[in-house]
Amino acid sequence: MVAATHHIMRFDRRLLAVPTALLALAFANQTVAADPPELDPQLRQQAETLIAAALESELAYNLVESLTTEVGPRLAGSAAEARARDWATAKLTDLGFSHVRVEPFEIEGWERHAESAAITAPFPQALTVTALGNSVPTPAEGLTGTVARFDSLDALLASDDAPEALAGRIVFVDETMTRTQDGSGYGNAVRKRYQAATAGQARGAIAALIRSVGTSHHRFAHTGSMGYGDVGHSIPTAALAAPDADQLTRALQRGDVSVRLKLHTEILGPMPSGNVIAEIPGRTHPEEIVLLGAHLDSWDLAPGAIDDGAGVAIVTAAARLLLEHDLQPRRTVRIVLFGAEEVGLRGGRAYAAAHAATLPQHVAAAESDFGADIIWRLDTNLPPERTYWGEHLYTLLKPLGVGRGTNETTGGPDIGPLVPGGATPFALRQNGWDYFDYHHTPNDTLDKIDPVKLRQNVAAYVAFAWLMANID
Amino acid sequence: MVAATHHIMRFDRRLLAVPTALLALAFANQTVAADPPELDPQLRQQAETLIAAALESELAYNLVESLTTEVGPRLAGSAAEARARDWATAKLTDLGFSHVRVEPFEIEGWERHAESAAITAPFPQALTVTALGNSVPTPAEGLTGTVARFDSLDALLASDDAPEALAGRIVFVDETMTRTQDGSGYGNAVRKRYQAATAGQARGAIAALIRSVGTSHHRFAHTGSMGYGDVGHSIPTAALAAPDADQLTRALQRGDVSVRLKLHTEILGPMPSGNVIAEIPGRTHPEEIVLLGAHLDSWDLAPGAIDDGAGVAIVTAAARLLLEHDLQPRRTVRIVLFGAEEVGLRGGRAYAAAHAATLPQHVAAAESDFGADIIWRLDTNLPPERTYWGEHLYTLLKPLGVGRGTNETTGGPDIGPLVPGGATPFALRQNGWDYFDYHHTPNDTLDKIDPVKLRQNVAAYVAFAWLMANID
Repeated sequence: MVAATHHIMRFDRRLLAVPTALLALAFANQTVAADPPELDPQLRQQAETLIAAALESELAYNLVESLTTEVGPRLAGSAAEARARDWATAKLTDLGFSHVRVEPFEIEGWERHAESAAITAPFPQALTVTALGNSVPTPAEGLTGTVARFDSLDALLASDDAPEALAGRIVFVDETMTRTQDGSGYGNAVRKRYQAATAGQARGAIAALIRSVGTSHHRFAHTGSMGYGDVGHSIPTAALAAPDADQLTRALQRGDVSVRLKLHTEILGPMPSGNVIAEIPGRTHPEEIVLLGAHLDSWDLAPGAIDDGAGVAIVTAAARLLLEHDLQPRRTVRIVLFGAEEVGLRGGRAYAAAHAATLPQHVAAAESDFGADIIWRLDTNLPPERTYWGEHLYTLLKPLGVGRGTNETTGGPDIGPLVPGGATPFALRQNGWDYFDYHHTPNDTLDKIDPVKLRQNVAAYVAFAWLMANID
Repeated sequence: MVAATHHIMRFDRRLLAVPTALLALAFANQTVAADPPELDPQLRQQAETLIAAALESELAYNLVESLTTEVGPRLAGSAAEARARDWATAKLTDLGFSHVRVEPFEIEGWERHAESAAITAPFPQALTVTALGNSVPTPAEGLTGTVARFDSLDALLASDDAPEALAGRIVFVDETMTRTQDGSGYGNAVRKRYQAATAGQARGAIAALIRSVGTSHHRFAHTGSMGYGDVGHSIPTAALAAPDADQLTRALQRGDVSVRLKLHTEILGPMPSGNVIAEIPGRTHPEEIVLLGAHLDSWDLAPGAIDDGAGVAIVTAAARLLLEHDLQPRRTVRIVLFGAEEVGLRGGRAYAAAHAATLPQHVAAAESDFGADIIWRLDTNLPPERTYWGEHLYTLLKPLGVGRGTNETTGGPDIGPLVPGGATPFALRQNGWDYFDYHHTPNDTLDKIDPVKLRQNVAAYVAFAWLMANID
């Protein structure tokens, strides 16, 4: 029994280690107003009613089921993205929102037609590969070169940069990504996606391969945008699935390896995209906006359930609860379903440009674009006189398992462009531990969403929306 | 503290529930000789030494790493399978085995060139699909039909069997597979793979789709042989990944759905295959054979790490331990690396035909072809006078976590054909809980193998080999 007791105590301490660490993080940068106004009891009670309703609501799951089934993959600029706008317009109208409209803009289109790769010598075998967004095509018959492997982007950048240093070679950046809850591993990993091609090109390489950004060991390649740098164009670039990056590395341990890469991609002219917007007009301060954002487009490899069908569903279902409960907010609650996020945050930028004059009236803006796992942390970026907005929101979210984070958020990808113009960002941060197992791969399908966790998100967003739309 | 104690006791009971159930199973059909001979202490000590060495050996992992890297996928009849025979011949020779040779035979070849599927209406989107082995191709431009879905093969078989009942349709059998430790779920699931096409064809369908055999919810389609039944040919047949089967089902819940299927497959003429054989000759009874089997071929979608690179590695590394310890067995220990298992157990049948006269001298035959997880159960099929062989083996395996199963095994796929001719099968059964998450999909890659678990297999096989090759 002593042994058993000892064992369980050790077990408990291990469990506690995580929350303690988070707690330390949570309070690291917190600013508390000296004497904040009380949270209005009626507002609090209404929020709690909405939270309880959210935790019972099936709407978000039904919405993401509908979007992923009836539209499926919806690449920015494509006919499928246009169908997604039609879907959103119809849904938002049916759900009773006001001023449902599309704000169109144009993007430079890009399309994937076919892609393949293989080791041709000495161990002929296919490799699982996917073209990175924006990649130029290879010649139709493909191109073949010996592989020059680098452990990391930094190792490539530090290597001999003579224009012939990698002449005729395929550069391969095999940098791994760290799994993190807050997604911070992604920022590091994404550097190789943007820069491997330009760094390779500068050294004479004929193509670039990267180990997929992502944390899965399943055999899926991870797409996402690559960059042209200052060059204005670049070499064909693709990502290998993690098992294939390992396989190529094992082959290279035995000597020279030739790879053939075939990417049939197409850089198109201007293509249509757009943001879909809907509102619940404010009762007393309609010019003040509480913005709930997510993005409608997805990569082309999957129906985009977690990226970002879930976000579309969460913010829509949250706002819909206000209508269901006949609660008209003092400020305007605005849903913005951004277009063309994946190809360069184009929807966020278009919104920021179109609404530049009113961005300072965006008193609170939050976006859901990090999957479908639970929200675990609230980050804000409030001036001292409004810090209590964050504290009151935290009071409401705490029972949902949400901790208090920093007061330094700059918003997410789509909200970010609104912040320099005066919008106030909030971050209801989702648990991203598993997110990059699926993100940007063919495996981002509906079954990856847990409907119960989705409801926790809706509950947090409805609390956010109602509080921010009514707080003094 | 009381609460903690209570908690751990509940926890312990839950853990114990599994072994108790297995124990009940283990003894269900066991026959114990009334007064079995004692296990020779020297034999026991030698076996224990070999087991201890196996648990420290890296050879099996190095072998499967080498086969999957240097050969990769190795479809029966292909040039890659021929390279696998060369690889095996060289390895077995280098490792010091005797009489290393290939016993060639021919098979009817089949090859996959390209495959794709898409919902064309009402929700256009690609579906992840793979042709089943033996499937005829579609026309080059593909074929399109509306989908007729059945919950199970039995539902299809019970449906209207008029020759026009499904005229012009694509039949879709959406039967799920049950996850089981012993692999019994596979037998049920495989029926649809063999019979969906012939049942559809009899009703006028133009193609057949099945939900992938397998237990994974990741977006991989599962290949494997389909059957022509008595018809002698059939309609194009493919498997959808589980998320895509779900997606198609959701689309069908909204009305008629058209699918376009393109399978570019090729039925080839006779192609070469072969079994690679190596031996440790018996000291006193060389004509008596202890056979350790696995299969060299794999499906074409993956390097076949768990199916069956692991088995090749396990039996080879186990036999090699006898050479390393300078232990010459009384009977001959024979490694047989079968060819063309995946396409109809052709290697096992060829071996049974070529060795028909000596099968009764195969006093013990076991094969490793169920992945790389630990062996959890020993099944035998021994006559009463030799039941003690199983009991002695069990004594050696028990410390490795192996339980005693039935005395009714008929061997595995490759050993099975040897049994009617007089070979005595043993089954060192691996834990198959996760096996069908990877099996026959592109995801059967080296990283799915746990080197520590692999060593437990080697330990069990070396105990089997040494005991069976020396027991009185």
